Amino acid sequence: MNENEKFMKSALKEAEKAFEKEEIPVGCVIVKDGKIISRAHNSKETTKNACGHAEILAIQKACKKLNSWRLLDCEMYVTLEPCPMCAGALINSRISKVYIGTDDEKTGACGTKLNLLEDYKFNHNVQVQKYILQEECSRNIKKIF
Amino acid sequence: MNENEKFMKSALKEAEKAFEKEEIPVGCVIVKDGKIISRAHNSKETTKNACGHAEILAIQKACKKLNSWRLLDCEMYVTLEPCPMCAGALINSRISKVYIGTDDEKTGACGTKLNLLEDYKFNHNVQVQKYILQEECSRNIKKIF
Repeated sequence: MNENEKFMKSALKEAEKAFEKEEIPVGCVIVKDGKIISRAHNSKETTKNACGHAEILAIQKACKKLNSWRLLDCEMYVTLEPCPMCAGALINSRISKVYIGTDDEKTGACGTKLNLLEDYKFNHNVQVQKYILQEECSRNIKKIF
Repeated sequence: MNENEKFMKSALKEAEKAFEKEEIPVGCVIVKDGKIISRAHNSKETTKNACGHAEILAIQKACKKLNSWRLLDCEMYVTLEPCPMCAGALINSRISKVYIGTDDEKTGACGTKLNLLEDYKFNHNVQVQKYILQEECSRNIKKIF
């Protein structure tokens, strides 16, 4: 297992926590200097928060940890392709790269429904690498559909 | 002053609070059944939170108030066109309509840089009405540029 797969495994562990709470199982981690600085899973139903997606929660935790809204030199590993809200949060937080497990046909905003990260020029560009542990991430999300 | 202008005035008051804290002056309110249920202003710098835009904060407050992530029959008034993150949050929270003061040439995702709310089919559509108190909202945002 290479380093990317190792971090995606950690994101999948977060997704498992969401699944246990009967949430849509999405998990993510944020990595800086080779270390995980933040972990989160989708908590929308449990917390009754429309913004309670894994990515938003992980970004907010990482901002607290670094005491800055700029997550410079940070990378995110997320089991499912981010929606427009979360892709926008990646841009706003200056995350350098996002590693994605599998596509989201319904709301994916990193290449599937649209590509916020590569088709538009904003004040920050986020690199995208797809299909880390794709089979496992796809199996994970299909558990609930 | 009609009702739309009255609610945009309240959003402008929120923007003024952001300005006083040396934040980019953006404010918004969420209205249900003719009453304001949530108010917020941009707090990104003060709280060191990349997701601390007025719209995200107002949506989270409204979710708490209604004890639900679904903001059904709720409308938002915001002084500046939402960015991709915030436009995505409008979709995710099922807000029915957004009233916008003025365009954001750099990151506007409701018709300027792109139109997340009208050009794509997601599982919820948010109506858009632009240019409520446009002159005042434009003057407000230009204070800092």
